[in-house]
Amino acid sequence: MWSSPSCPSRVRARSRSPCCESGSGRVTRSVSIRSIGGQQPGLCGGWRTPTVRQSGRSRTLRYGGTSVTRGDPAVEGIVLYEKRGPIGTVTLNYGHAYNTLTLESMEALEATLKEIAARREVAVVILQGNEKTFSSGHNFREIQELDLQGVYDLFQRSFRLKQTIREMPQVVVAKVRGIAVAAGLELVAVADLAVAAESARFGTPGINWGLFCSTPAVFLSRNVGRKKAAEMLFTGNLYSAREAEGMGLVNRVVPDEALDEATEALAQAIARHSLDVIAIGKRMFYQQLQMQDFEALAFATEVIVRNSKHPDAVSGIQAFCEKRTPVWHDGIERAAASTEAAARGSQVGERAEG
Amino acid sequence: MWSSPSCPSRVRARSRSPCCESGSGRVTRSVSIRSIGGQQPGLCGGWRTPTVRQSGRSRTLRYGGTSVTRGDPAVEGIVLYEKRGPIGTVTLNYGHAYNTLTLESMEALEATLKEIAARREVAVVILQGNEKTFSSGHNFREIQELDLQGVYDLFQRSFRLKQTIREMPQVVVAKVRGIAVAAGLELVAVADLAVAAESARFGTPGINWGLFCSTPAVFLSRNVGRKKAAEMLFTGNLYSAREAEGMGLVNRVVPDEALDEATEALAQAIARHSLDVIAIGKRMFYQQLQMQDFEALAFATEVIVRNSKHPDAVSGIQAFCEKRTPVWHDGIERAAASTEAAARGSQVGERAEG
Amino acid sequence: MWSSPSCPSRVRARSRSPCCESGSGRVTRSVSIRSIGGQQPGLCGGWRTPTVRQSGRSRTLRYGGTSVTRGDPAVEGIVLYEKRGPIGTVTLNYGHAYNTLTLESMEALEATLKEIAARREVAVVILQGNEKTFSSGHNFREIQELDLQGVYDLFQRSFRLKQTIREMPQVVVAKVRGIAVAAGLELVAVADLAVAAESARFGTPGINWGLFCSTPAVFLSRNVGRKKAAEMLFTGNLYSAREAEGMGLVNRVVPDEALDEATEALAQAIARHSLDVIAIGKRMFYQQLQMQDFEALAFATEVIVRNSKHPDAVSGIQAFCEKRTPVWHDGIERAAASTEAAARGSQVGERAEG
Repeated sequence: MWSSPSCPSRVRARSRSPCCESGSGRVTRSVSIRSIGGQQPGLCGGWRTPTVRQSGRSRTLRYGGTSVTRGDPAVEGIVLYEKRGPIGTVTLNYGHAYNTLTLESMEALEATLKEIAARREVAVVILQGNEKTFSSGHNFREIQELDLQGVYDLFQRSFRLKQTIREMPQVVVAKVRGIAVAAGLELVAVADLAVAAESARFGTPGINWGLFCSTPAVFLSRNVGRKKAAEMLFTGNLYSAREAEGMGLVNRVVPDEALDEATEALAQAIARHSLDVIAIGKRMFYQQLQMQDFEALAFATEVIVRNSKHPDAVSGIQAFCEKRTPVWHDGIERAAASTEAAARGSQVGERAEG
Repeated sequence: MWSSPSCPSRVRARSRSPCCESGSGRVTRSVSIRSIGGQQPGLCGGWRTPTVRQSGRSRTLRYGGTSVTRGDPAVEGIVLYEKRGPIGTVTLNYGHAYNTLTLESMEALEATLKEIAARREVAVVILQGNEKTFSSGHNFREIQELDLQGVYDLFQRSFRLKQTIREMPQVVVAKVRGIAVAAGLELVAVADLAVAAESARFGTPGINWGLFCSTPAVFLSRNVGRKKAAEMLFTGNLYSAREAEGMGLVNRVVPDEALDEATEALAQAIARHSLDVIAIGKRMFYQQLQMQDFEALAFATEVIVRNSKHPDAVSGIQAFCEKRTPVWHDGIERAAASTEAAARGSQVGERAEG
Repeated sequence: MWSSPSCPSRVRARSRSPCCESGSGRVTRSVSIRSIGGQQPGLCGGWRTPTVRQSGRSRTLRYGGTSVTRGDPAVEGIVLYEKRGPIGTVTLNYGHAYNTLTLESMEALEATLKEIAARREVAVVILQGNEKTFSSGHNFREIQELDLQGVYDLFQRSFRLKQTIREMPQVVVAKVRGIAVAAGLELVAVADLAVAAESARFGTPGINWGLFCSTPAVFLSRNVGRKKAAEMLFTGNLYSAREAEGMGLVNRVVPDEALDEATEALAQAIARHSLDVIAIGKRMFYQQLQMQDFEALAFATEVIVRNSKHPDAVSGIQAFCEKRTPVWHDGIERAAASTEAAARGSQVGERAEG
């Protein structure tokens, strides 16, 4: 399904896609920062001066890059991308506009994710906002100003963004600081995994303003039990990170200062695995979820049988039998840290089979 | 879908339906109490003297009313209804018969809920029992005495009752004191939200007597994980309110003395919103739950796009942008308290969009 | 659906099936131990000397039996079976091979469960491993040595094993000590209920070795929320029993020394009920889970209406009305302890109906 790491034809040629720009070419080996998008509107109309807030994490993004496209993307870009070993980090850098998901920012985010999917250089993608806002959802002024067809186009783009996250071969981990509401919460819900800082807040407040959070409700109610999902949607209240964890919306909550480390550890635990096998598993996981029990088991049977003769399974099982750390053929560069993690995984796996 | 607040044709003309009775007409502005149903059988056959137990809440129902149909409904009526501002409270007043769901009590409850749905005078409905029993489910003697077709008619009425709760535009909040078992638990499960007193007890004990709780299993297993739902159904044991909360069957558990206040607060938090938008959201929420992921997202996209041009969304979003409390066009009377709640909601919503 | 307790024709005549062997005939009244299977391979190839580890529970199995087939099954048999009153215990006795689910051990387990299903002598089945391993899943060496068709045959047998557990009329309770990973975790997930010792460990580590746990994912993701299921599958990490309980994978976790007693208590609470009604409920429960809400309720309505005239319902409801302990016509022998349990159940049920 997933094409080779060269520039894919299905990423439409647009001047904003660094992949298809002449010159941007392949990113540098160890770290690359790219950004997409330019001038940004404020939350509810008007144009404000960018005042990008810096956390420990985003400072790295601003100053630590070795490859930068177009001017100073850490200020100008709506979406930043950094690759470190087998992990890519995508940052919504639209903080002065509360990381709203506008036509523009969604286009930038979708293009970035599609490129990551096509290049297959990382096994895990961390999706983050800034210190104050993960994402506050769609922009009300934009919705107000568009006619019915325009609003439809906006939500169609939002649909494709969710589809892109679902269809990319990498595991996507939402890393949540600050506010994640409405379509911002939807990003957390559609992500494969999520880690939140203790001070993060979640909600579907559209009902407060007469616009029920119908689209966020879809993946919210596929992560969270009915009663809690309904409560969130019908009250429009904000919920704490601990409440979100209790509901099943996020995998774990950590003190704010431990968020970087905890997310990194989770990403590393996954990135030590073969991207080919992650991709097989991710497709299978979501497809079987929607089937009847034994229909799903029949489907999973076909998948695991073919998986058993995949080169990474054949060599992985051989490594298991010889008590070695497996080596993958997925083309992902892995640092020593990742190999150590794989070695630890090997201990865990010693009594465990497929 | 939802008809005008006049007496709807789809509520069948029956002498028990106050809506279609001449004389009962429209309820008084601020408070109304009506009741439906008459003489009541005991739990397992025989006729007992009514000994209605009074809690703080149900005392209000008995003495606080300004509009009473037929004699003394607090004693005679099987179902009581009280309207206060945007919130309606429906009370199963069949306590000496353990609030069993008989052909008679289900008819009264269904008629009351259908009338509330049709009148669109409230945005939220609280459904409660009395101090000792929320509802103990169907009446075993009634089941025993009916032939197969009669039992089918009984469960068809039970089916329509659940359908009525699902299809009414209002959010239905189950408020649980005492016992909620079998079809009583089913009411809690099919309600949109539920709040329970700490001393409430939940169960599906039919299996103890050879009648598996098949119908309660449906919404139980749509609120609660498989293992816990199976445990409850196959053991037939009673579970505490805290256990029910842990399973996801109820939204929250509070000390018995705080149940009135906590339920009121939850209802107020919802009732400050437009009934039109609540209705859009409620229909959408349950319909999309049953679809495949991106089928559901496509459906929700259509709904939110149309919602964005609903008068309450247009004016709500305008109020958001102007930092005002929105005013709805849903015809619901809201008191000052509710407006204050909306104002508090406005603070919450300030960083939050649709 | 379920045939009489005589030897069923649909258990294929195989020399290993004690049911269809001449001589083994019906088991003795109170206790029977049978075993299926012979020589056993080690975990990753090679043949080791059996060193069966004994826990308090399995010691009973070894020494307490009164009816033993073929030599010393406690040592030789891959699967042991013991019947005590209305409860049957199936033990994976393949501990020196980490209770791997090979073609051979799955054949033995499936045959045992099919026989239990057909005989209808017990109402509940406890499925357990040994002290160190519940089951470590499929055997990697076996997978490695088989060609694609062979691997397919292996997973088809695994499919049928899960189908057998689902289709047998008895409630199956997984009792987990030690490791339950991959297809071992799948057994826990497909079981109707599960109790775990505090030191038990759960995981889907296949991804560590390039073989994504696709088949275990099916029932894992039907017990556990999406985010937690994905975390387990994509990290390949081991999780504690408390974590498994929090996710919904097991019903309860108890200190290791209390596992026997807690599982027995849960099994007894179920085994006091009519097997016929358990079977009606089990079929209904899983079938309705896969339907849309009101389709499921219509189906459950048909089931409960017919159930209401089942002899065990008619006499059970009569017993309820007469405040007696019901007596079932399901042919299951129940000891005094079980009758006392039923009597306690009667107290619980006194305010509870169907």
